[in-house]
Amino acid sequence: MLEHDLDLERAARRGYPEAVYCAGKTPAQTAAIAATVRDRPDVTTLFTRASGEHASAVLQQLPEAHHDAGAGLLAWPPTPPPPSGGPVLVVAAGTSDLPVAREALLTARYLGRDADLIADVGVAGLHRILGHLPALRAAHAIVVAAGMDGALPGVVAGLVSAPVVAVPTSVGYGAAFGGVAPLLTMLNACAPGVAVVNIDNGYGAGHLAAQITAAR
Amino acid sequence: MLEHDLDLERAARRGYPEAVYCAGKTPAQTAAIAATVRDRPDVTTLFTRASGEHASAVLQQLPEAHHDAGAGLLAWPPTPPPPSGGPVLVVAAGTSDLPVAREALLTARYLGRDADLIADVGVAGLHRILGHLPALRAAHAIVVAAGMDGALPGVVAGLVSAPVVAVPTSVGYGAAFGGVAPLLTMLNACAPGVAVVNIDNGYGAGHLAAQITAAR
Amino acid sequence: MLEHDLDLERAARRGYPEAVYCAGKTPAQTAAIAATVRDRPDVTTLFTRASGEHASAVLQQLPEAHHDAGAGLLAWPPTPPPPSGGPVLVVAAGTSDLPVAREALLTARYLGRDADLIADVGVAGLHRILGHLPALRAAHAIVVAAGMDGALPGVVAGLVSAPVVAVPTSVGYGAAFGGVAPLLTMLNACAPGVAVVNIDNGYGAGHLAAQITAAR
Amino acid sequence: MLEHDLDLERAARRGYPEAVYCAGKTPAQTAAIAATVRDRPDVTTLFTRASGEHASAVLQQLPEAHHDAGAGLLAWPPTPPPPSGGPVLVVAAGTSDLPVAREALLTARYLGRDADLIADVGVAGLHRILGHLPALRAAHAIVVAAGMDGALPGVVAGLVSAPVVAVPTSVGYGAAFGGVAPLLTMLNACAPGVAVVNIDNGYGAGHLAAQITAAR
Amino acid sequence: MLEHDLDLERAARRGYPEAVYCAGKTPAQTAAIAATVRDRPDVTTLFTRASGEHASAVLQQLPEAHHDAGAGLLAWPPTPPPPSGGPVLVVAAGTSDLPVAREALLTARYLGRDADLIADVGVAGLHRILGHLPALRAAHAIVVAAGMDGALPGVVAGLVSAPVVAVPTSVGYGAAFGGVAPLLTMLNACAPGVAVVNIDNGYGAGHLAAQITAAR
Amino acid sequence: MLEHDLDLERAARRGYPEAVYCAGKTPAQTAAIAATVRDRPDVTTLFTRASGEHASAVLQQLPEAHHDAGAGLLAWPPTPPPPSGGPVLVVAAGTSDLPVAREALLTARYLGRDADLIADVGVAGLHRILGHLPALRAAHAIVVAAGMDGALPGVVAGLVSAPVVAVPTSVGYGAAFGGVAPLLTMLNACAPGVAVVNIDNGYGAGHLAAQITAAR
Amino acid sequence: MLEHDLDLERAARRGYPEAVYCAGKTPAQTAAIAATVRDRPDVTTLFTRASGEHASAVLQQLPEAHHDAGAGLLAWPPTPPPPSGGPVLVVAAGTSDLPVAREALLTARYLGRDADLIADVGVAGLHRILGHLPALRAAHAIVVAAGMDGALPGVVAGLVSAPVVAVPTSVGYGAAFGGVAPLLTMLNACAPGVAVVNIDNGYGAGHLAAQITAAR
Amino acid sequence: MLEHDLDLERAARRGYPEAVYCAGKTPAQTAAIAATVRDRPDVTTLFTRASGEHASAVLQQLPEAHHDAGAGLLAWPPTPPPPSGGPVLVVAAGTSDLPVAREALLTARYLGRDADLIADVGVAGLHRILGHLPALRAAHAIVVAAGMDGALPGVVAGLVSAPVVAVPTSVGYGAAFGGVAPLLTMLNACAPGVAVVNIDNGYGAGHLAAQITAAR
Repeated sequence: MLEHDLDLERAARRGYPEAVYCAGKTPAQTAAIAATVRDRPDVTTLFTRASGEHASAVLQQLPEAHHDAGAGLLAWPPTPPPPSGGPVLVVAAGTSDLPVAREALLTARYLGRDADLIADVGVAGLHRILGHLPALRAAHAIVVAAGMDGALPGVVAGLVSAPVVAVPTSVGYGAAFGGVAPLLTMLNACAPGVAVVNIDNGYGAGHLAAQITAAR
Repeated sequence: MLEHDLDLERAARRGYPEAVYCAGKTPAQTAAIAATVRDRPDVTTLFTRASGEHASAVLQQLPEAHHDAGAGLLAWPPTPPPPSGGPVLVVAAGTSDLPVAREALLTARYLGRDADLIADVGVAGLHRILGHLPALRAAHAIVVAAGMDGALPGVVAGLVSAPVVAVPTSVGYGAAFGGVAPLLTMLNACAPGVAVVNIDNGYGAGHLAAQITAAR
Repeated sequence: MLEHDLDLERAARRGYPEAVYCAGKTPAQTAAIAATVRDRPDVTTLFTRASGEHASAVLQQLPEAHHDAGAGLLAWPPTPPPPSGGPVLVVAAGTSDLPVAREALLTARYLGRDADLIADVGVAGLHRILGHLPALRAAHAIVVAAGMDGALPGVVAGLVSAPVVAVPTSVGYGAAFGGVAPLLTMLNACAPGVAVVNIDNGYGAGHLAAQITAAR
Repeated sequence: MLEHDLDLERAARRGYPEAVYCAGKTPAQTAAIAATVRDRPDVTTLFTRASGEHASAVLQQLPEAHHDAGAGLLAWPPTPPPPSGGPVLVVAAGTSDLPVAREALLTARYLGRDADLIADVGVAGLHRILGHLPALRAAHAIVVAAGMDGALPGVVAGLVSAPVVAVPTSVGYGAAFGGVAPLLTMLNACAPGVAVVNIDNGYGAGHLAAQITAAR
Repeated sequence: MLEHDLDLERAARRGYPEAVYCAGKTPAQTAAIAATVRDRPDVTTLFTRASGEHASAVLQQLPEAHHDAGAGLLAWPPTPPPPSGGPVLVVAAGTSDLPVAREALLTARYLGRDADLIADVGVAGLHRILGHLPALRAAHAIVVAAGMDGALPGVVAGLVSAPVVAVPTSVGYGAAFGGVAPLLTMLNACAPGVAVVNIDNGYGAGHLAAQITAAR
Repeated sequence: MLEHDLDLERAARRGYPEAVYCAGKTPAQTAAIAATVRDRPDVTTLFTRASGEHASAVLQQLPEAHHDAGAGLLAWPPTPPPPSGGPVLVVAAGTSDLPVAREALLTARYLGRDADLIADVGVAGLHRILGHLPALRAAHAIVVAAGMDGALPGVVAGLVSAPVVAVPTSVGYGAAFGGVAPLLTMLNACAPGVAVVNIDNGYGAGHLAAQITAAR
Repeated sequence: MLEHDLDLERAARRGYPEAVYCAGKTPAQTAAIAATVRDRPDVTTLFTRASGEHASAVLQQLPEAHHDAGAGLLAWPPTPPPPSGGPVLVVAAGTSDLPVAREALLTARYLGRDADLIADVGVAGLHRILGHLPALRAAHAIVVAAGMDGALPGVVAGLVSAPVVAVPTSVGYGAAFGGVAPLLTMLNACAPGVAVVNIDNGYGAGHLAAQITAAR
Repeated sequence: MLEHDLDLERAARRGYPEAVYCAGKTPAQTAAIAATVRDRPDVTTLFTRASGEHASAVLQQLPEAHHDAGAGLLAWPPTPPPPSGGPVLVVAAGTSDLPVAREALLTARYLGRDADLIADVGVAGLHRILGHLPALRAAHAIVVAAGMDGALPGVVAGLVSAPVVAVPTSVGYGAAFGGVAPLLTMLNACAPGVAVVNIDNGYGAGHLAAQITAAR
């Protein structure tokens, strides 16, 4: 009975790292996977949605792995590849969106992009986001993480010509319904150019932004 | 068996017009109500959500009533009361939001407010709404009608100190879900000061704005 | 990488306090913000949705802040501004709605309104709310917090001419769906004049009531 | 292949009429059933949710059947049985709720109850329903049909000691969601004693009220 | 500021006990209410949805109160009134529905009904419920508690002529959605005579059954 | 640009007919497909969800095709293959479920099964379904089509040892939500052995039953 | 008052084991049932959804029972019956789907089927599932457990002629909505031959597969 | 009162055409806009979601505009700009997805991309899509339109390294819920690199693909 068939050849096939989604796995399962990749430093492996216990299990196998607790992410080998392709900008609407935004930021970097982050630029104070126009317009893809009303990606998309990757976060309460409200807002953005990913899916957002900005 | 007990005394009790919601009534029922109010020009009566057939039925009884087909609204007596209280501004995000916005505009006027309308100022082009800052800041209450992502009321609320009455419209498709998406956006607006009413409820929005700006 | 850009100038711009929503922040992040405002007693700062840990973190930086544990709210400076504008009345349908109602009450007071609270006046016993008619009619804005069937705001709106700010609470079980049932009831209130805010959003309700009753 | 096995013995078994739900049947199927019951005047048969075409088809077979177009109901034999059991009162919150309320009224009558109807007594004007207190308290069961906020059944239940059968109607728009909003309100009524049936199910409401008030 | 206005006169007005819903209250609030009723043994008071902590708090004030931990219910005075009216039968589809069923059973008894309970008679084995036909047909009202598919109330309603009070339970997983699936099943029951109450609302079901079977 | 690549080799690959879902196609597109299969009488082709216009378009190309208007189905060649495998029984809870049930019946027959149909055996009168026990127990797979409460498949599954294919129908109103209520009931059936397919998917139900009963 | 009427005769009646759903029962209730079956080794009893506490309680009564902690399942007697009928294959899309897949695997085995399991063959790398084509085509029924997008069952159904039992898992986050997303995907699978069961219902999936492959 | 402020400068600002969403506008309003752009052949204008009446109104003003009735799209000037940037491939899962796919195709072309279309390659027959691997891998962005289970975009994303723009269509019935099922599938796609847009939003998908493949 085969149980985990880690697909290290996907890197070759699609040109991108292997990702291990920890949330549905036991720390022991995660450690077993970490042991498998120890001898393959040629392939970048990301461990996403890693709790403290997952992180300890991975670090026991890969002590030099990079660990970002806020983003719940570990990367091995620890050093991102040298930047290639176009620059990525990650934008967090509020402080509470930072964990998701950092997951996107690090994913883009480990996929080989030059990536930076700005935060606390929600639409309740437009002067904040308008103050970053030059940075927004310099990016070849922009990831915007936002919860609550999720209005920021549509506003940003109206200001730039590059694609915007919108990632709704589960930040909020009541009728935010765990991220459903910003998800719907983003799907209905009036400005074209908004690519939506799943709620809290910082990894997916960063990955998509890296694909969009890949050198071709 | 008593069937319709038109409450003309509510005007006295609450100080506001009587409103007849036509959508759930037959044209004949609507006409019967119109006949009842013919002899009470002291009370303003609004017929809302009036289809063409409803309008014909009402106009046969009240030939001088004011009829705005776009807003689906009739008013009798036809002339609004002289303006009192503070000024109201109605904002429509897009052309498609105009029927709801006009229903709000006329309701506010027939409740005795000085009310005006601006349109086509959605967040996909921020310069549009920013170009109306003086008008926005002069109003004592602002009604904002928006469909799709419904982001405009939150943006407006961040620019002014007066209350914003947000009315989601059923404009949009797919994941707009007939107005649910903008409704959720408005309930989750990051800026405080957003009062939400039911989807497409232009009458309710205009009424609420008139109450907020009433002279006290 | 800038992470929190506390907008103390919003007080100047919109004329209202700064609010820090604690639920999405770590106690450490909250404490850092508290340290920032220590030297700005000219601006009222509210910390909302503060857990016990958030409160401790804030009080270590601002020992004199006012803390209302029931409402999950801290205010600094501790003394509300002297009352101005019209009076606000906060109504809680049941005992379980009190935390949300108190959040609204305190917010209105820290925005400079004369505000009072009545409780346990749900529609299952109409004589309760009818016994408070004079107080209801004296207010220039009424906040009504209700869970379960959420019927109280519509009943109150039918009794007064001032606007009613309706805040659904997540009180209830089963088909109350964490506040969705009273939210829908309030959006569909038959009486006009009901302004709805997000589930459990006592801060937003109190803020909106204070804006409505501001001296102009 | 047997296709319709009309259960005329159910009258004997449960003591109640046979009901034919027309909405899901073709007029031809309905006519075939009508032909079957022509020779069984000992059993009352109700045809519910009958469109004009259904009604014509039934009346061709049963020319003397009673037809109430507003309620979409036909009954044969046309005369209800002599009243027995306790009195039933049917209450319609608004004019638009009358079709559902009349379906309940007629069903109760054809099940042998003394039943009456009052209308236009919604909670937006409490004096209306309070003006009917003696009639409400005389009934042994009360059916309340209401759309929009659906608040009336809970208010009535708080005023009487008899059971209230609440039937939500699909009257309303936007966030009424075709009757979901009043359905939830009724399920969450604060006053005990509210029995909820399906949206627009006037037949079921009248039937249940007749069962509750049956002579035992 | 009045906070809890316990309505002991409701017993007189509606003829039924006072109920205190504990889930939304602190143990201290519950104890305070318990202290209030200590001197009113003429009125039966039920404490529903009482956790262990609520129960301790109540029992400290009312040591002789009857406590049923499974049902989460306390009653004071501890002895139910002598039975009057018609008999009530409570039916639990499965073992897991027993807490809700027992809440209904005790409520009916404390409202003065002769009430009994049968369990584990779900529709997956029809012979189980069919084996109880005499008991089912002897009752003047039947409460049926069921989770998962919630099919039992409709089946029972087809077998008897008395009203069936259907209470969906949150028993089940996945697409049971915390009781929504059985709730919808019950609202759509093909047999008339099914009165639906809120999910897990054993108190409401027992109360309604007692009202239906009251001596008149 | 290739537009329709009719997969006649699927018959060979999976051993089953080709099906053309008409609802999403224009009559002209459907006719073009019909023309394609005219020369392939070795493969059975089913046209499902065919409106009258679709049927006319197909019959112009394939005048000898079998057409069942009630089921919205055409089959070519018109004669089903000789029966093989185990017998299939299709059960329709009510008359209104017949179109879906007939689609299942015919599909099973054109996939080569001996299939029969019984109808009007809903759970509101258990004696109806219990009267068919021998037929139910003789089948090797049973398709049960039911709307409204959707309780019949679970009841049937408790009576037999063969698998039950449950197909919810959109029959019903209000809280039936176009088939969602019976869909949930079936997914939550207490008896194991219930295989659920999409709402109104008679074709899928018949196909699955034919696969289950295939000779191996 | 009878409380649990364990139906050991169902084995005789339907020819399948008795199953005890532990999740809704206390450990004590579960132990009581275990004691009941101790003397009936002729009937296989499965305890499903057993937590560690449930398992301890059962094992105290039935020390020799087989316990699979990952699947949350205990079986007594511990040895499955000798295989009969056709072979069953269980497929888990990802590692996180294994608990549900193992529950299906063991259920099929204890119902007397020859059953095997393959895992980690999700559609993101098609070569994985395509590498198992011979095993897929050898099975007489295939259970596919998948969370997130739930696309695997439809892909598998397009590759084989045997029925596919699709069991959505609650694996995933955000817009997976606890298994709703894969549930909908499976109900809408383009390939016919997909039988859907409830979210996480590995027991039901295994049972259904065993029924489908029973020797007849 | 200004009503439509056509933003021809957006082309300059963002570098993309102006789009007029016709569905929410009257033919007259659409014609008025068409008249406005007649003298601006330097800016490409797209009229999307144009019914036959909208198209006639536009063509009266712009007789030379290109009209694609299937896609509901008009373009003026009629000739797309010469291709620049990377190639775009549009994939339609089934024939019914073609209108949305063609809207995407034409939008990409009018934004200056070399774009092509393949259709009828759904996952029920994997060999179809696998037969197009060279074309899929040659594209710099792939738009995939799919209804029903919406599984195709995730499968495609696992086969290529370019970004996939997934557009769910409202094709399907029952539990497809007008496109919600494929929308959720796409948001939960296991393979990274899937950018989701609103249901039926072919315009948005084509626009996003053109932005992704823009020459930089």
